[in-house]
Amino acid sequence: MQAYKKLEERFAKVTALDQIYSLLDWDRAVTMPGQGNDQRARQIGVISVLAHALQSDPEVAALAAAVDRAQLNDWQRANLRLIERLHVDSAAVPADLVERKAAQEARTEMLWREARAEGDFKKVLPGLEKLVDLTRACAEAKAARLGVSPYEALMDTYAPGMPMQEVDAIFDDYAAFMPALLDRALARQEPLPLKGPFPLAAQVDLSRKIAEGLGFDFSWGRLDVSAHPFSSGIGNDVRITTRYDENDFFPGLQGAAHETGHALYDHNTPAEWHGQPVGASQNMGMMMHESQSLSLDMQLFRGLPYWTFIAPAVCAAFGGSGPAWEAENLWRHASRVARGYIRIEADEVTYPAHIILRYRLERDLIGGKLQPRDIREAWNEGFKDLMGLEVPDDRLGCLQDIHWFTGYYGYFPAYALGAMTAAQFVRKMREDIPDLDARVARGDIAAFTGWLKTSVQEKACLHEPQDLIEKVTGRRLTAEAFKQHLAERYGDGTCSDTSAPGEKRRA
Amino acid sequence: MQAYKKLEERFAKVTALDQIYSLLDWDRAVTMPGQGNDQRARQIGVISVLAHALQSDPEVAALAAAVDRAQLNDWQRANLRLIERLHVDSAAVPADLVERKAAQEARTEMLWREARAEGDFKKVLPGLEKLVDLTRACAEAKAARLGVSPYEALMDTYAPGMPMQEVDAIFDDYAAFMPALLDRALARQEPLPLKGPFPLAAQVDLSRKIAEGLGFDFSWGRLDVSAHPFSSGIGNDVRITTRYDENDFFPGLQGAAHETGHALYDHNTPAEWHGQPVGASQNMGMMMHESQSLSLDMQLFRGLPYWTFIAPAVCAAFGGSGPAWEAENLWRHASRVARGYIRIEADEVTYPAHIILRYRLERDLIGGKLQPRDIREAWNEGFKDLMGLEVPDDRLGCLQDIHWFTGYYGYFPAYALGAMTAAQFVRKMREDIPDLDARVARGDIAAFTGWLKTSVQEKACLHEPQDLIEKVTGRRLTAEAFKQHLAERYGDGTCSDTSAPGEKRRA
Repeated sequence: MQAYKKLEERFAKVTALDQIYSLLDWDRAVTMPGQGNDQRARQIGVISVLAHALQSDPEVAALAAAVDRAQLNDWQRANLRLIERLHVDSAAVPADLVERKAAQEARTEMLWREARAEGDFKKVLPGLEKLVDLTRACAEAKAARLGVSPYEALMDTYAPGMPMQEVDAIFDDYAAFMPALLDRALARQEPLPLKGPFPLAAQVDLSRKIAEGLGFDFSWGRLDVSAHPFSSGIGNDVRITTRYDENDFFPGLQGAAHETGHALYDHNTPAEWHGQPVGASQNMGMMMHESQSLSLDMQLFRGLPYWTFIAPAVCAAFGGSGPAWEAENLWRHASRVARGYIRIEADEVTYPAHIILRYRLERDLIGGKLQPRDIREAWNEGFKDLMGLEVPDDRLGCLQDIHWFTGYYGYFPAYALGAMTAAQFVRKMREDIPDLDARVARGDIAAFTGWLKTSVQEKACLHEPQDLIEKVTGRRLTAEAFKQHLAERYGDGTCSDTSAPGEKRRA
Repeated sequence: MQAYKKLEERFAKVTALDQIYSLLDWDRAVTMPGQGNDQRARQIGVISVLAHALQSDPEVAALAAAVDRAQLNDWQRANLRLIERLHVDSAAVPADLVERKAAQEARTEMLWREARAEGDFKKVLPGLEKLVDLTRACAEAKAARLGVSPYEALMDTYAPGMPMQEVDAIFDDYAAFMPALLDRALARQEPLPLKGPFPLAAQVDLSRKIAEGLGFDFSWGRLDVSAHPFSSGIGNDVRITTRYDENDFFPGLQGAAHETGHALYDHNTPAEWHGQPVGASQNMGMMMHESQSLSLDMQLFRGLPYWTFIAPAVCAAFGGSGPAWEAENLWRHASRVARGYIRIEADEVTYPAHIILRYRLERDLIGGKLQPRDIREAWNEGFKDLMGLEVPDDRLGCLQDIHWFTGYYGYFPAYALGAMTAAQFVRKMREDIPDLDARVARGDIAAFTGWLKTSVQEKACLHEPQDLIEKVTGRRLTAEAFKQHLAERYGDGTCSDTSAPGEKRRA
């Protein structure tokens, strides 16, 4: 046990540094004075260097090898597995390569800001080429340690244990399914318009009520405003943000619901493990984390039962009355579907298409089948295929997201896989709670969130993500439940789900 | 130069960790959700341990010994001096003693909270005795390294380089001077009363204006609310707090002025040194830092010229008019003097007496001439002597401050020495700017703050504190300028300053 205890001591420090990193980042986005950026970057740099040194130290591997695993309980064993993974992740790539990549990320991001302002992809291309080269080198180093392909090595951070072959199958399945459903969804009746403006103070107040109604508690959390909504923290200090638009109150409320989903995951993991990797839900990866935020955001918040319950509070907040403010009409606003160019503005039907496009391109980019100079053409062609729209401008196309220009590859698929995981969880929830919709409609939100807490959140990182999905839902992830969910909400309730090619059960 | 550069690299980390520690502490006081305390304590513990390890590592001494000082410029030499001091401070006391003291601090503080609630010093005595023993042991270890007495070793953190003999002389001088002045100050005409309540929003707004008028800038700083006003941060991220009372707007404004003094010091040190010990004004010690906050708070804010300028804004903020709202009457409020029991409520005439009492007791406590069990009696007797009041209750006496019960010894004198240093600086300022009062009265506050910036703040830690005072004012610190300042503001303008026993010039 002594070797294991030494690892726990070391990773208690790593975990605390992670939490501090989060706070520095939250503070930068929410409270820091404008001029504080350079200092903050230095502080964050120091925290990263210290955490990396603790994680990558060869002593970690030596201690892990010395642990007598038979003496560990399940949580300790899971903790040790994560410790080893964090060690491999941080030790796999040589330090000088990490440094060169970080420097190139900063340069490429600057170029991207200029290129995007001018709508000209060519401007960022030289920087992007260098960054892709360095990313490929990092991916190869990590792939060699993990025994997977380079792209899978990158994706492993965000969707641990998810093979490319399964992702291909799930996304191909959805890409084939979407067009017909999208047509049906677009043919839905337009909602009656709501007349703004909607005062910000009322939106703030209502967002707080919605978050609280979903289980958020201001004695262990904060809700603030930032340019892009996000969530951070753990345990009894969890912080979420949203942003408000005076002419449209739905995005602000939806942001609060989405981030509350993340917050509950961060809060509900077992308190006794909050100081170790196994207790940090972020170590389940973005895909699992999104499954919790999107369970609230897509499955709950964009459904009619929730609006049946919440409509009176919404009317009261804005003094609304009449047919436009009835539950069903409000719900039609909350679940509007449209063909559009911008990922972050997309609805739940078209969102995966934005991701599938990016996934296919970055998979081929890291795999060497696509070169950076060909991205624009490939993007525009792929977008036409998936969405049926011509991209008129790189700002609405391949320059819209920061990810590729600041070194995030393998990240995108986790968003859509998270939406699909949420659907698969909620399908199981419906089996376990047959009157779920009726309960939600009368305000028993705890029926919904309580299931997530018990089935997923309290497990923290006890199981690997893919194993947890299988344990909870009885099968590995496929697109099936998601397709069924969308068909029921937006279509005529049918979808062919018999031959989902992504389905593959473990022995 | 390589040895020196290695030290800079190491202490860039220490400095960043110090800044992060500050932010964690600020966040706890201002923004953290209530339940976050335990997590925060762990995070702060990790930062402290990592910083201590970097500072106390024997490699620091080895590298310092290898530096060729002839190759360093003045700033680098000063930086090296501080690095060595930080190393000695953190390495002088054995780690197990530091740990035992920290644990006893936590226990004694808990006892103190109970004892204070009940107004019974005896309740905390057992814990205090243990803590004093451990503090003596730490003081002796540090004293042996510094070649000073144990109490001086403790005071050295807050008033570096200040010999006990000089502090004795300065405080004896002031104790002899105060009674007659206090009588005269108390005989001053009472100000006309101001009718509240004074809306908090107006107080917040006015505090921001006052801070800005003194040179605070919200692009590099924040002003928030906390239970006890404080300041933290450095460079382009400096944060201050104050607290408001709806029935009395003076404490809130004064808090903002006081903390702005700290903030300007933290902001005005040279940016290129913000990442090293020599650039952190906190390394000049509390006494010098208070000299800057009290220059604004006591010297400027409690003076008639400032109120001549600010009165119209104050009237506008609260809609005040008539004789009670005239500049001179407002100033009489801002500079009220009273005999009282509580240090933190004291005015500038009686404040040093509160400190002198504590200084004499803790000096004798650490020196072994006073035992913890005799503190209450010694306190009440000393207070009677200095202030002429009988202490009716330990809550108004020896239990009022947290310092001794959580291990802060040698800290108190810095408050009063800071007030005296401020007076000595401002006396020199008046020599350099003969029409200073007229300038302040017409709103040229930059004349005042600019002098502090150039003479003191931009020097950061280039000189040792006592040397800087001598360089700037031409003499070592005495009580003389402070006495003269008080005599002019509260008395008839005279004070015997010819034989100030604290005066002792360096060869």
